[in-house]
Amino acid sequence: MTKTLPVKALSLVVNGDRLNSTLEKLAQIGKQPDNTIKRLAFSAEDLAARAQLSDWMSAAGMSVRTDAAGNVIGRYPGLESEARTLATGSHIDTVFSGGRFDGSLGVIAGLEVVRVLQENNVKLHHPLEVIAFADEERTMIGSKAIAGTAPSDPERYDTVDNEPIQDCLARAGGEWSALSSARRSQEDIACFIELHVEQGGILEAVERDIGVVEGIVGQQRHRITIQGRTNHAGTTPMNMRRDALTTAAHLILAIEDIAKHFPGDPVATVGTLQIWPNSINTVPGSVNLSLDIRDLSQDVIAHMIEQLRRKIETVAVTSRTRIRIKPELQVEPTLAAANVQALIVESCEELELSYTHLPSRASHDAQEMGRFTDMGMIFVPSKEGISHSSDEYTSPDQCTKGANILLRTLLKLDRVYR
Amino acid sequence: MTKTLPVKALSLVVNGDRLNSTLEKLAQIGKQPDNTIKRLAFSAEDLAARAQLSDWMSAAGMSVRTDAAGNVIGRYPGLESEARTLATGSHIDTVFSGGRFDGSLGVIAGLEVVRVLQENNVKLHHPLEVIAFADEERTMIGSKAIAGTAPSDPERYDTVDNEPIQDCLARAGGEWSALSSARRSQEDIACFIELHVEQGGILEAVERDIGVVEGIVGQQRHRITIQGRTNHAGTTPMNMRRDALTTAAHLILAIEDIAKHFPGDPVATVGTLQIWPNSINTVPGSVNLSLDIRDLSQDVIAHMIEQLRRKIETVAVTSRTRIRIKPELQVEPTLAAANVQALIVESCEELELSYTHLPSRASHDAQEMGRFTDMGMIFVPSKEGISHSSDEYTSPDQCTKGANILLRTLLKLDRVYR
Repeated sequence: MTKTLPVKALSLVVNGDRLNSTLEKLAQIGKQPDNTIKRLAFSAEDLAARAQLSDWMSAAGMSVRTDAAGNVIGRYPGLESEARTLATGSHIDTVFSGGRFDGSLGVIAGLEVVRVLQENNVKLHHPLEVIAFADEERTMIGSKAIAGTAPSDPERYDTVDNEPIQDCLARAGGEWSALSSARRSQEDIACFIELHVEQGGILEAVERDIGVVEGIVGQQRHRITIQGRTNHAGTTPMNMRRDALTTAAHLILAIEDIAKHFPGDPVATVGTLQIWPNSINTVPGSVNLSLDIRDLSQDVIAHMIEQLRRKIETVAVTSRTRIRIKPELQVEPTLAAANVQALIVESCEELELSYTHLPSRASHDAQEMGRFTDMGMIFVPSKEGISHSSDEYTSPDQCTKGANILLRTLLKLDRVYR
Repeated sequence: MTKTLPVKALSLVVNGDRLNSTLEKLAQIGKQPDNTIKRLAFSAEDLAARAQLSDWMSAAGMSVRTDAAGNVIGRYPGLESEARTLATGSHIDTVFSGGRFDGSLGVIAGLEVVRVLQENNVKLHHPLEVIAFADEERTMIGSKAIAGTAPSDPERYDTVDNEPIQDCLARAGGEWSALSSARRSQEDIACFIELHVEQGGILEAVERDIGVVEGIVGQQRHRITIQGRTNHAGTTPMNMRRDALTTAAHLILAIEDIAKHFPGDPVATVGTLQIWPNSINTVPGSVNLSLDIRDLSQDVIAHMIEQLRRKIETVAVTSRTRIRIKPELQVEPTLAAANVQALIVESCEELELSYTHLPSRASHDAQEMGRFTDMGMIFVPSKEGISHSSDEYTSPDQCTKGANILLRTLLKLDRVYR
C-alpha cells in the first residue's frame, strides 16, 4: 500500500479547496454574531472543536490521543518504526473575540498535509504528529507540559474565570496529576515546525508570500512607578512642581527612542498607565506604567533595560521624583534551527514563492517546543497586521501557499533527520 | 459713643489671641478624626458654622442677614448713612478633606476687625460688611450671585450628591427664586478686600510675610483626544505604530515647555489622562487628557493655546494620529485694583512687614467681586504650599499679621472712598 518517498512525494501539493473549506468548518464552532470566534480553552466550544478535529484526524489515517496536558495529538505512522517523530501543529483555542486563522491554520494545514500523504499512499520515514496544543492563548499548558516548562503550582495558571486548572484539564481528557507524562524530548521529537499567520504587518508591507521565522522573541515586562508630589494646579508655579506625569512623558519617549535606535528591530511598549489623583486641577503626584520589551536577543533586551535605567537616574534628578523599575516577567527568546530555516527557504525557491526572514514578536507554541528540540516556523501574511479580531484575514491562496511550504519542508526534513 | 477716625484708628491692631482662638473654635465644626475639616457647603456642619458665625457677628455689633444666595452678611454700620459699603470676607465651607485656614481665615479676620473697632468704639465713615460667601468650593453661587454671574439654569450647579441647588439654598436660608435679589453693584459696594492663605509655596520660598495679590488668574480648560491605532505590542514594529500614548507624551512635554518659556509665569497642567485599551501587550490606540491653563492675562493664555495648536498639527503628522482639542471652560482673569494694592503695600511698610506682589492662581470669591467693583486680596504664607489637607498650616503669628494688614488697609480705604 505504501510507497517510498523521494520522487513522487516532492511533487505533492495540498488541496487548497479542502484546506480552506476545513478551516471554514472549524470556524463555525464558536462563531459569534459579530463574526469573531469565541473558543476559549476548555470551553464547550473548545471541546466541540477538539472532537471535530479528532474525527478528521482519524479519517486521515492517524491514531489520536489526548495527553495529560490536554493536547490533541494525531499520529501518522512512518516507514521506520524506530525513527524519531517529526511534529507540526498549533492551537484551536481562541481569545475572547478571536479570528479564524490564528492557530487554526497551523492545525488544519498539518491535517491537510497528512490527508495528502494518505490519499497518495505516501508514508514518511518518520512518524508525523499533528498537535493541537492546549490553551495557547492563556496558560500555554499544552506546549509547556511537552517542553517540561509548565509550572507545577496549579495556582499559577491564569485560566478563564479562575477555574482550577485541574478541572479544566479533566474536562478535556487531560490529567493534572499525570502532567509530567506529557513531557517529550529531543530523542523523541526530532523537529517541530509550525505554520501560523503573522499577526503583524511586515509580510504585507514588503509584499512577500512567506515569512521564514528566525526565532520567537524573548520578552521582559517591567512595572515603573513614579512618585512626585500632588499639588494644586493653579497655585504651584512650574518650577516648583514634582509632576509625575511630565516625568512619565520623558520616560515614555526615552523608551520609544531606545527601541527605535537599538540595532535588530526590538520593540518596546508602554501599554498601561495609571495616574493619581487624576484630577483636572491637580498636578499628578504619582504614575504607574507598564513596560513590555521584546527581541530575539536577550542581550539586546538587557542592554535596553540598562540604558533605560541610566535615563531613569537622570530624569529622577531633574524632575525631583522617585522612580522605581521592577521586573515582572522574563521569557527567554527561542531561535529557529538554522537547518529548518534553510529548508523553508529552499521550499520557497522551488515553489517560486517570495519570502523574507523575520522574527516572531508574538508567543507561539513553537517557542516552548524550541526549548528542547529543533524548531521552525512559517508565517503567512495577515491583512493590515490585524489579529484577535473579526477583521483577521489571510486569503485562501495565502493559506494554501503556507500549507504547501509546510508540506514541502516536512518532506525535506524527513530526508535530513535520522 | 462713637469717635471720629483718623489718629486713634490707625493705631489699632487686632487681638491675635482672640483671632486664633476663634479660628480654632470654628475648626471644631466638621473636624474629622484625621484632623481634616469636612464642612461641605449646605451640609449640617456648614449650617452649624453659619449659626456660630452669626452669633459672633451679632455679638460684635453687626446686623446679620442671609441673602437669597445663602451668603451670611454681617453689617457694621458706618458714620455716614449715605456712604457706600466697604466689604471683606471669604468662605467657611470646605472641600471633603479640607484644612482649617482656607476661607475661614478671611471670614474670622473680618470678624476680628469689627471686634477691634467695636471694643474701641470706632466706626468707619463707611458701613463695613463681613461676608461668608456660600459654597466657594464648588458652585461659587454666593459670590457669583452678588456679581450677577450666577447661571440661571439650576442644572448647571454641580452640588454635593447632585442635590438640587434650590434645596441647598432653602436649607441655608437662601431662596432660589429670589436669587437676583442678592446682586450688588459698584454704587453699593465701593470696594471688596479678601484675606486668604496663599495655598501655594511662593511666600514661603521668598520668605515674605504678606502677598499683595495682583489679580486672580484667568483659566481655560481643554479636553485633548488622540486617536491612534490599537496594535499588538509584540508584532507591530516601532516604525509601523500609531501610538496614542507616545503622542500624548510629546504633547505633555510641549505643554510644560510652553508654560515654562512664556513670560509672566503662567501655569499649565495635564491633570487627567485615560488610555485605551490600557493593556500591557497592546500599543495604546487612544488617549484622552485634560489641560488646565492659568494666567493673569487672557492674551497670554490665548497665545499659549495657539502655540499648542501649532505643535499639535506637527505632532499629528509625525505620529500619524488624529488629535482634537476642545475648550471646556473659560474663566476671565480679574485684576486687583491698583489703589487697593498700593494701600496694602503702604500698610505693610508702616507695620514693617515684608511683602511681594504675586498673582492668585486659585479661584477665590474676590474673583467674582472684582467683576463689578474694586477688589484687593491679601495673602499669608501656606506651609510648603499645602492646602486642602490636614497639613494646611499658617502660623498664629502669620494669621495675625494678615489680619492686621486687613484692618489697616480697610482703615485706609475708608479714607480714600467717598
